[in-house]
Amino acid sequence: MMNTEWIAVDWGTSHLRAWAMRGETVLHHARSGAGMSRVNRDGFQSALLSLVESWLGPAPVDVIACGMVGARQGWVEAPYSAVPCPALPVCPVRVPGTDPRIRAFVVPGLKQNEPADVMRGEETQIAGFLSPRPHWDGVICLPGTHTKWVQVSAGEVISFRTFMTGEMFDLLCGQSVLKHSVGDGWDEAAFGDAVADTLSRPENLAARLFGIRAADLLRGQDTGRARARLSGLLLGAELAATRPYWLGQQIAIIGSPDLSAAYAAALKQQGAFCEIADATQATLAGLSQARNLTRQTT
Amino acid sequence: MMNTEWIAVDWGTSHLRAWAMRGETVLHHARSGAGMSRVNRDGFQSALLSLVESWLGPAPVDVIACGMVGARQGWVEAPYSAVPCPALPVCPVRVPGTDPRIRAFVVPGLKQNEPADVMRGEETQIAGFLSPRPHWDGVICLPGTHTKWVQVSAGEVISFRTFMTGEMFDLLCGQSVLKHSVGDGWDEAAFGDAVADTLSRPENLAARLFGIRAADLLRGQDTGRARARLSGLLLGAELAATRPYWLGQQIAIIGSPDLSAAYAAALKQQGAFCEIADATQATLAGLSQARNLTRQTT
Repeated sequence: MMNTEWIAVDWGTSHLRAWAMRGETVLHHARSGAGMSRVNRDGFQSALLSLVESWLGPAPVDVIACGMVGARQGWVEAPYSAVPCPALPVCPVRVPGTDPRIRAFVVPGLKQNEPADVMRGEETQIAGFLSPRPHWDGVICLPGTHTKWVQVSAGEVISFRTFMTGEMFDLLCGQSVLKHSVGDGWDEAAFGDAVADTLSRPENLAARLFGIRAADLLRGQDTGRARARLSGLLLGAELAATRPYWLGQQIAIIGSPDLSAAYAAALKQQGAFCEIADATQATLAGLSQARNLTRQTT
Repeated sequence: MMNTEWIAVDWGTSHLRAWAMRGETVLHHARSGAGMSRVNRDGFQSALLSLVESWLGPAPVDVIACGMVGARQGWVEAPYSAVPCPALPVCPVRVPGTDPRIRAFVVPGLKQNEPADVMRGEETQIAGFLSPRPHWDGVICLPGTHTKWVQVSAGEVISFRTFMTGEMFDLLCGQSVLKHSVGDGWDEAAFGDAVADTLSRPENLAARLFGIRAADLLRGQDTGRARARLSGLLLGAELAATRPYWLGQQIAIIGSPDLSAAYAAALKQQGAFCEIADATQATLAGLSQARNLTRQTT
C-alpha cells in the first residue's frame, strides 16, 4: 500500500473535499458537507480528521488547504494578497497547535481594493491552471456560487470581478415565486434565447424573471424550459457586464462540467472561443505548488 | 354601535387584511398572517371568519376580496381580464357554499398576453386611485414584493410589467452572503449613488451586489449603508428597465409609505415628478366600486 505523502484540501462555504496525494498522484479522495458555514471555530480539525484519519500514519503529513477556510472566521486567517500580483501561490499560513499527525497550511486569497472584491480558493485554481502555461494571457472565468472573472497578463492577476449569478440562480429557483415554475430538465434553445435577451438588454432582467412565472400561469410551461430560461437570463446579464473582460480575449473556464458547458455555449453564441479546464486538476496543481513553497521555508 | 354593512378584504400571498365598512367609512380593521401561502384550500373561510367573526350579525354581510385569493389555488378562481381593458373592476366572482352569515366575492385580476404578465390585487388599487380622477393619464407604480408598472390612458390599463425587485431584496438581505453585511438603518446618499450606478449601467447589478460584501470584508461597512446600497442598486436597475414607462410621464406611486418614499426619491433624482397615493385608501375605494357591481347584478 502506498503511503500518503501529503493531503490536498479544498474547503469552501458548503463543502469539504480532500485528496490523499503522493507527489502529483491522487491515492484517495473523500468529501463531506462540512463546509465553512456548518463548522464551528473549534471544529475544523475534527471535521478534517474524521474525513482523512485512515490516510494518516505515525509520521506527520502536510495538509495544504485553500478556500474559505482561510477567512477570518476560518481555521486560521490567511490574509489576502492584493492584486495586481503574481498569479502564483504565496506561502501558505501554518495552522498553529494541530494534532501531531498533521502539519496544516492554508493558502491566502486575493483582494482587490477598487472596486472592492475578494476571492478564496480560485487563486489556487488559477495558479494551477497557469503552471503548465507560463506565458498564457487572457481571461479566466471560474463559474460557481460566486462566479469570478479574472484578467491575467504577463503572469500576473491584473484585476477580477465577482458575480452573484450562481447564488441568485439558487435563491430564485428554490425560494422565490419561480420555484412553482422551475424544475428538472433543460432546453438549449430557451437558454440561448434568454442569454441573447439580457445580453442585449441587461436592464430587463428583473422583469423577464417574473415573466417566467407569468408565462407558466397563462400558458403552462415546461419546467426544464423555465430552468434553462432562468439560467440564460442571469448568465446573459453577467456576460453583458463582463463584455470588456471577454471581448476579443483568450478565455479559459474552470468550473464544474455542467456549468462550464453552459458558460462556453453562451460565449460561443457571441462569437467568443473558450477552453474548458478541469477544475479538480487545477485545484490539485495549485495546491501542489503551494506545498512546494512550504517545503522551501520550513 | 354601528353595524357592519360590508367587509373589505385584501388577501395576498403573505397577509390577510380586513376592514369592517359602513358605506365608505371604516368601522374596524384587523389583520393576520394567514396569507395565501399559509392557508389550505379548505381553510379560507375559517381563516377569514376567525378574523372578522365579531363584526358579523344575523343578516348576511357582503365580503369583497381582492388579491391572490382569486388564484386557481385560492378560495375561488376569479379568471383574469386581459389588457388593454377599462381600469374599472369587473364584476367579482361569488364564492359558492359559504357560511350563511357572509356572501363572499373575489375581484378578478388582470393578465397581459405579450409579454406574459399577471396581477391580482393591484387592479383594485388602480381602480380605486382612478375613481376620483376619471381623466387621469400616466403611469402607476405599485411597489412591493412584485412591483408593477402600469400604463393608463383614456381610462384603460394599456400594458404593465412586473419586477421581482422586492422579492430579490428580501432574498439577498435574508438568505444570501450579503446577510452578513446588511442590517438595520439607512443612508440616503448611499441609496442615491447606488440608484445612479445601476440606472446608467444596469448590467453591473450582479457584480455591484457582491461588491457590498467585499467592501465590508476589506474596509468594514455600516450595515444601514449596505442596506441602502442594496436597495438602490436593485431599484436603479428597475428604473433603467422602466424608463420607457416613466420618462416624461405623470407618475403615481401606490404602496407602503417607506417603499413609496424610496421610489419617489429615486425618480425625483432623475428629474421625474411623482405623486404618492395612499395604498389602503386606494384598495378600499376599489373594493367599494367592486361591491357596487355585485349589488347591481344580484
